[in-house]
Amino acid sequence: MTLRGGIDLGGTKIQTVVVDDENAVLGQARRPTPTTGGPPDVAAAMVAAMGEAAEQAGVKTADLVRVGVGSPGGIDAHAGTVTGAGNLPGWQETFALGPALEDELETPVALGNDVQVATDAEARLGAGRDHSSILGVFWGTGVGGGIVLDGTPWLGLGGAGEIGHVVVELGGRRCPCGRHGCMEAYAGRAALERHARELHDKGEKTELFKIARKRDSDRLRSGIWAAALERGDPLAVKLIKKAVEALGAGVASVSNVLDVELIVLGGGLGVRLGQPYADRIAAAMLPHLFHDYRPPPVKVAELGDLGGAIGASLLCA
Amino acid sequence: MTLRGGIDLGGTKIQTVVVDDENAVLGQARRPTPTTGGPPDVAAAMVAAMGEAAEQAGVKTADLVRVGVGSPGGIDAHAGTVTGAGNLPGWQETFALGPALEDELETPVALGNDVQVATDAEARLGAGRDHSSILGVFWGTGVGGGIVLDGTPWLGLGGAGEIGHVVVELGGRRCPCGRHGCMEAYAGRAALERHARELHDKGEKTELFKIARKRDSDRLRSGIWAAALERGDPLAVKLIKKAVEALGAGVASVSNVLDVELIVLGGGLGVRLGQPYADRIAAAMLPHLFHDYRPPPVKVAELGDLGGAIGASLLCA
Repeated sequence: MTLRGGIDLGGTKIQTVVVDDENAVLGQARRPTPTTGGPPDVAAAMVAAMGEAAEQAGVKTADLVRVGVGSPGGIDAHAGTVTGAGNLPGWQETFALGPALEDELETPVALGNDVQVATDAEARLGAGRDHSSILGVFWGTGVGGGIVLDGTPWLGLGGAGEIGHVVVELGGRRCPCGRHGCMEAYAGRAALERHARELHDKGEKTELFKIARKRDSDRLRSGIWAAALERGDPLAVKLIKKAVEALGAGVASVSNVLDVELIVLGGGLGVRLGQPYADRIAAAMLPHLFHDYRPPPVKVAELGDLGGAIGASLLCA
Repeated sequence: MTLRGGIDLGGTKIQTVVVDDENAVLGQARRPTPTTGGPPDVAAAMVAAMGEAAEQAGVKTADLVRVGVGSPGGIDAHAGTVTGAGNLPGWQETFALGPALEDELETPVALGNDVQVATDAEARLGAGRDHSSILGVFWGTGVGGGIVLDGTPWLGLGGAGEIGHVVVELGGRRCPCGRHGCMEAYAGRAALERHARELHDKGEKTELFKIARKRDSDRLRSGIWAAALERGDPLAVKLIKKAVEALGAGVASVSNVLDVELIVLGGGLGVRLGQPYADRIAAAMLPHLFHDYRPPPVKVAELGDLGGAIGASLLCA
């Protein structure tokens, strides 16, 4: 039996897994992503989290045949570098993450795009396992996309799948990326929080920030949006309604272009809000779908929080 | 030496070619598409045009190893049927075009999507011949898209490439397809003509319809738009500016998703307005491109009016 490691490097957390040949999870660990320092500090936290998962599985990291990493930013898989990972501390430039991890983990390390590896995991082991062509929509802080066509990830020139930056409104809202009218400007959690804060400051009533304070959070995490929606908070309902509308238009646009078999909805908000919201997105897609007599199903990602790390473990060194 | 036939079945014209093993054109013919009658009448016109091209090449259609057809509507290549080709007379239902043509041409017939075969021709023989992944943007009566990824056409479940129906403006202008805010609603020639007529009826000044009358045309064909633009006609300039803006947003959206190497601009308007307008579309894409430090080049289709028929001749029976 060979064991593999997987690391999902997110903006808020580092999730690691150890899996066996059947992709069963034998060990897992989670640590917060450092918010200060630089790439070496992030790498050290990744090594610690990987070590913890290995220990849980009863092995050392050197016993793993390889460790895969799903990372944000620009990935050069060959060189093992990550460039411009904006959500990570001090990571504007290029850092040789692969070599740095290999030194400490004492096993080969493979790098991939975080959203793409999560999509690949869903395609091979999760909601898409009975389909050969899927679009992964990761609705979280931003809106990321992963594409699997005929069973193979489609990466383009290395930067494919940026569905969050599909334009749904010419000259529309400013997106956290600096552009205007992107789907993410209406649907991404960062944009939603900024918008909620603006409207709250202007006097619109909402429980969102009250719930956040009670939970000792300075951010409007997915669970806070879910709680506000459950209470029928008018501002949360209004903003999420617009987010669903934007997701409907943007994902339908991509579906019109790719005509895949299945849409898999993941990400913090996607997984937290679950199938009822996947169904709302499907309904919001319908008016924009060219082949509306056979709309693609929209299913929630099945691997949940571990999907990114399991997907990373599928990367080949 | 083997000879192949290709037929491009368009809403206004039927273009045929005979090509040799090197894809050199040995014969070509063009006939207007029947505007009355039904699918059998269209098939008869296709047979006549194919016969004319064969005669020019000094052969009979039975001497061609096969004939490929690029058709609008829903294609079932296996069954040889075309369903719901809205721009063709009386073709709402399914018609077994392949078998009908085979009977008359006395050679095997292969069917493909008109836009996809034109894209394939550009990818293999035209503007994209040095690239493995391209997006074809066919700017004509509508806006069609063709996708070639790693040298292979991507068809999805059979309906991929509907880039004209990428949403660029939520709740925006009504598209000829009946939906709202599609790129085609701003950029397609049918939509442009409808919009021009509305504004002209409301009193906006334009030479567009005067030029059309002089040319004895009841439609605003691509050449008429080109002539009006050359004269600086304010309505034509305004509508084409908005069309370019919509194309910029929509094509950039698709580029953000697919990250292909090259955009090839074809179609009646695309070929007629040429590289200066391809450059304007590239400029209009820039504010929406996620990887804007390496924008994909936008090149005009090289095979011009024959691209569709040559692409059809590349189809395998």
